[in-house]
Amino acid sequence: MKKHKHGGDIYSRNIEMDYSANISPLGIPKRSEEAILASLDRLVHYPDVECRSLRAMLSEKEGIPADFILCGNGAAELIFALANGLKPKRALVAAPGFAEYEQALSGAGCELSFYELKEAQGFAYQEDYFQNITEELDMVFLCNPNNPTGGTVDRAFLIAAAERCRECGCLLVVDECFNKFLDDAEAVTMKPYLEQYPNLVILDAFTKIYAMPGLRLGYCMTANERIREKMRSVMQPWSVSTLAQVAGEAALEEEFYVYEVRTVIREERSFLEHEMRKLGLTVFSARANFIFFKAPEDLAEKLLAKSILIRDCSNYRGLKKGYFRIAVRGHRENEALMRAFAEVLS
Amino acid sequence: MKKHKHGGDIYSRNIEMDYSANISPLGIPKRSEEAILASLDRLVHYPDVECRSLRAMLSEKEGIPADFILCGNGAAELIFALANGLKPKRALVAAPGFAEYEQALSGAGCELSFYELKEAQGFAYQEDYFQNITEELDMVFLCNPNNPTGGTVDRAFLIAAAERCRECGCLLVVDECFNKFLDDAEAVTMKPYLEQYPNLVILDAFTKIYAMPGLRLGYCMTANERIREKMRSVMQPWSVSTLAQVAGEAALEEEFYVYEVRTVIREERSFLEHEMRKLGLTVFSARANFIFFKAPEDLAEKLLAKSILIRDCSNYRGLKKGYFRIAVRGHRENEALMRAFAEVLS
Repeated sequence: MKKHKHGGDIYSRNIEMDYSANISPLGIPKRSEEAILASLDRLVHYPDVECRSLRAMLSEKEGIPADFILCGNGAAELIFALANGLKPKRALVAAPGFAEYEQALSGAGCELSFYELKEAQGFAYQEDYFQNITEELDMVFLCNPNNPTGGTVDRAFLIAAAERCRECGCLLVVDECFNKFLDDAEAVTMKPYLEQYPNLVILDAFTKIYAMPGLRLGYCMTANERIREKMRSVMQPWSVSTLAQVAGEAALEEEFYVYEVRTVIREERSFLEHEMRKLGLTVFSARANFIFFKAPEDLAEKLLAKSILIRDCSNYRGLKKGYFRIAVRGHRENEALMRAFAEVLS
Repeated sequence: MKKHKHGGDIYSRNIEMDYSANISPLGIPKRSEEAILASLDRLVHYPDVECRSLRAMLSEKEGIPADFILCGNGAAELIFALANGLKPKRALVAAPGFAEYEQALSGAGCELSFYELKEAQGFAYQEDYFQNITEELDMVFLCNPNNPTGGTVDRAFLIAAAERCRECGCLLVVDECFNKFLDDAEAVTMKPYLEQYPNLVILDAFTKIYAMPGLRLGYCMTANERIREKMRSVMQPWSVSTLAQVAGEAALEEEFYVYEVRTVIREERSFLEHEMRKLGLTVFSARANFIFFKAPEDLAEKLLAKSILIRDCSNYRGLKKGYFRIAVRGHRENEALMRAFAEVLS
């Protein structure tokens, strides 16, 4: 079976500490766990194919019409539904970037162009990005903050991208799966612009911010009914499990969870960046819950010998050996990781 | 949002008794529930993308190599992966039949031919089926037992279909999601023929036999690596949730569950058939856990007024008003349903 090389594969090795998956260090919200326990007797029924209750709550929380929302078995399913349902002929993605865009688009027979995020520019999007959006394109993926590099673009940049895409008759997919980790999340999200840009699709997920990657729950938002219809035409009706739906609803009832996550991430990211720079590592600007950095090529391997998993980013398009990503976790775990770093780097 | 008209939609109406979804009346196995409870702390990790432990257990239980198995978010995801991944140009399905074949194939741009199951022949497959398998076809779906009609074909028929498909350079997809409800399940399944027919794909699921439709777990089996690879190319890596994996593994450890289900179904199906015939209804031959029958057109509507949901089959291709399907449930529920039938039919 083909190996999918991603973060979070704790199954093929003996892993005691996983820093490779970018998940909230606070763990799955208590209410979500309770909702799962309270819903076991509902497993004998099919899930609600329309996720009515969850979409109603998301609508209120996100301030957008429930009709705009399509839920999926993780955001990943929706990326594949965009590719398989809209069958773009040519698409633009960033390199380095989340590998599933390329995998989904290639699987749907789409040709890809790559916008190179350059190390000399701190892997940040530049103004020349807009020249890369041309009329030949059908779809553009923009992950903000970008995975794995951690860079962000501001709203003015996103609006310019949406405008440029509209001029070119092209769909803009903004992946905001890490948006809620930002201190200024609300100022950066493109959600207020859905009605203005019918060529805009926003991806989001419960996976990272609510620490439930094992449960599979994501959603996309677009004012464009035709896009939702095309996506649904390649998706099974029952893709979101009952437990994912109830856990998601319960997570949305948590008033302070997201703010607590942001506080922990802000403090701990500073701590890690400081420690890593003390160790002589090159740390790139990070604003979400993960840190992208350069280190000796054998770092991941040496940590693995200590049953510690970090993300070796050498298999990302546009990267080579010596680039890594770690998740920001709780303080004790971060201290433990820094001790391990110090040991293997000395 | 487009309404998916399926059994089991207990969300858009007030339903106290659901006979519309064909689910084991014994409920989800206790071990599966326990496995879910014991695995909540694993939700902060991504699921195993290769479902290694589950596939190893399935391999042993089904007696086929683990490599032949591809797990999915319910069998429904695998139906869509067959359509989107293999992109058949022309396919043959039975009418009436499970609506997702048509939805998945149409969504992938496939033209469909329909093999008509005729009421005059008890909705059973006939010898003329093989003439309908031609070289123009790329894919053939055969559901055994067939949903919603309940008819079955024997292994000789299936082997003849596999041979004919091979001659025509066409893939045969045998959907065995209801196979395990049959008393002679092992004599009917095509699993022993996977190596002999690389053009054979078998679908199966935990959904019905282990009463876990809310959890989403299915799998397909084929000796043909190219087919599995093409399916995976349109599927996200993490489609099977951690809870589905552990619940599935635990279900496979139940030694007697399937035999108990068969015993209950056998007895209760007889009871229902007998009672329904006493009420003057036309009941078609049933061997799985559901019964297909003819009744006055307003039967479902009248039962709905009593908060009882049965499957009105009038929206199946090839059927019209007056055809219905009920699931075989436990004795008290079946008695309650028959009392309700007697009331509304009198």
